[in-house]
Amino acid sequence: MYDSVAVVGATGAVGTLIIRMLQERKFPYKRIKFLASQRSVGKSLQFNGVEHKVELLCPDAFNDVDLVIASTPDDVARDFVPEARKRVKAIVDESGYWRMYPDVPLVIPEVNAEAIRKHKGLISSPNCSTTQMVVALKPLHDYARVRRVVVSTYQATSGAGVQGNRDLVKSSQVWLDNNNQYAPCEMETFPYPIGFNCIPQIGSEKERGYTSEELKLLHETRKILGDSSIQVCPTAVRVPVANCHSESVLVETERKITVDKARELFASMPGVKLMDDLSHKLYPTPYHCHDTDDVYVGRIREDISASNSLAFWCVSDNLRKGAATNAVQIAEWIQQNL
Amino acid sequence: MYDSVAVVGATGAVGTLIIRMLQERKFPYKRIKFLASQRSVGKSLQFNGVEHKVELLCPDAFNDVDLVIASTPDDVARDFVPEARKRVKAIVDESGYWRMYPDVPLVIPEVNAEAIRKHKGLISSPNCSTTQMVVALKPLHDYARVRRVVVSTYQATSGAGVQGNRDLVKSSQVWLDNNNQYAPCEMETFPYPIGFNCIPQIGSEKERGYTSEELKLLHETRKILGDSSIQVCPTAVRVPVANCHSESVLVETERKITVDKARELFASMPGVKLMDDLSHKLYPTPYHCHDTDDVYVGRIREDISASNSLAFWCVSDNLRKGAATNAVQIAEWIQQNL
Repeated sequence: MYDSVAVVGATGAVGTLIIRMLQERKFPYKRIKFLASQRSVGKSLQFNGVEHKVELLCPDAFNDVDLVIASTPDDVARDFVPEARKRVKAIVDESGYWRMYPDVPLVIPEVNAEAIRKHKGLISSPNCSTTQMVVALKPLHDYARVRRVVVSTYQATSGAGVQGNRDLVKSSQVWLDNNNQYAPCEMETFPYPIGFNCIPQIGSEKERGYTSEELKLLHETRKILGDSSIQVCPTAVRVPVANCHSESVLVETERKITVDKARELFASMPGVKLMDDLSHKLYPTPYHCHDTDDVYVGRIREDISASNSLAFWCVSDNLRKGAATNAVQIAEWIQQNL
Repeated sequence: MYDSVAVVGATGAVGTLIIRMLQERKFPYKRIKFLASQRSVGKSLQFNGVEHKVELLCPDAFNDVDLVIASTPDDVARDFVPEARKRVKAIVDESGYWRMYPDVPLVIPEVNAEAIRKHKGLISSPNCSTTQMVVALKPLHDYARVRRVVVSTYQATSGAGVQGNRDLVKSSQVWLDNNNQYAPCEMETFPYPIGFNCIPQIGSEKERGYTSEELKLLHETRKILGDSSIQVCPTAVRVPVANCHSESVLVETERKITVDKARELFASMPGVKLMDDLSHKLYPTPYHCHDTDDVYVGRIREDISASNSLAFWCVSDNLRKGAATNAVQIAEWIQQNL
């Protein structure tokens, strides 16, 4: 166990939730500090009943730190991690910047915690849309080897941070105030009003017509499951939901998985909760699953268009299991095992 | 051309739009009447500047009618069609009840108008989610033969009628009034609040874990394209959008279609509008496409998980091309050709 912990990006949406999770889960530590960029320095934070002042994120802030849990924009992570890495024993980074570096384990504790043992000072936590899908895929992969995944996402605006939710609230209110019709409405983060709309672009354009968010669903899945032969066709879509990503997943496997077997596999997977009884209208929705730490799976059925292929629907809180909780779980594993 | 026209279900959401379309498109007729159930009888309607009273939907109302355009619930269509069919020359029915009967052509005019010639008094218009998908698939099928479709839908609440939109507005307002949090909120048509939520069930449970809405995407597609070897794996999801269904479609074909070829095929398909330039954030959304008659296609890309497979995103106004406009187009074809 490491004595001295720092939370980086402590005042952001995910950082705030990391701090809440550390307290709720009784994270073990002796000393803790909270770092952020200049504009948050000096802000007060309550942590386990003690008041802390937010300190400046700079290399020397890490001199007396063992373990870092960080959630920052990619460019901030790019800049602070190399210097911090020289000073601390381990950094758990929630940003996208370092995930695909070969010497950086990309970890979902229920899936590949052992990868943490080989860390060289830096462990990445995956992208939100990848995490929930891979938690659900893991037991299927172990049982029947995943060959191909076709996934269409229904992603919440909180994935675009506090501004994303502001855009959702603003454009929804404009629509309601305008007699349930669209009206021009300037957005901070989205290219078009997101209230009562669906936007089929998340992230920037990358190769072959796919977006950065979509390619994460391919590359991160391969890295976490340790199988570069897995094929993924992703479509990432922003929907007018504040929190919880939903995913429509089709998975082709080397050998057949019956619906009963799939239910058994999901039910025995740590971090997965089964909600699968269509006849009683039981399936996960953001309404049911927000503010929890599990990945919920339902609508499990055999693909009627191909053999050895299974369809399901999964929902998870993108700020919790998709970000804060997963990072804290990695840090907990470090405290217990290293 | 038939002289005497009746609109059945004239006061419903789609019926109202049928009446608007008949006027906007200058539908040819000599006499017209408007029929509905008892509770709408006597209501006044303006049609091409003339006032009409809504009359009772009953067998004798069809005695002096040649051509019927109907949009009613399935059980109403089941009951009124047999008697009406004895009295009139042709019924264009928007309901789901008669679509799969072998002697009933299921028609999208841009796709299979010639099927109307073989009608025996009744022509069905397809389900909204099927129509837009099949309009987009048609040129791909003609060029490269569609073998398999994997589709995940993002369907608007107006597909559940006026009550669906009331549920959307009510539950959205409750969420906003409750400090952007869910609160209990009784719904008329949906099993859970739909505002800021996604519900992965549309229609009732049918065989093998699929819903009625999902199986329509299989069976109606096969019937309209006249190819029962086409395989479809559908997932139908209700999203908090008032109008316009969106669909994430993956289509596997017998021979390869490049992205350039697909764009060319879509661009030359009547009823399709291409909106496909990710680098300029150009793709269809409900915000862009509502209140129009076309099927908009974008995000066209090669499936990176398999060969001879193409992914795209399509959006269309489910009340217009998905219902009212398609029915009126069928009736127009009848007036011009029979």
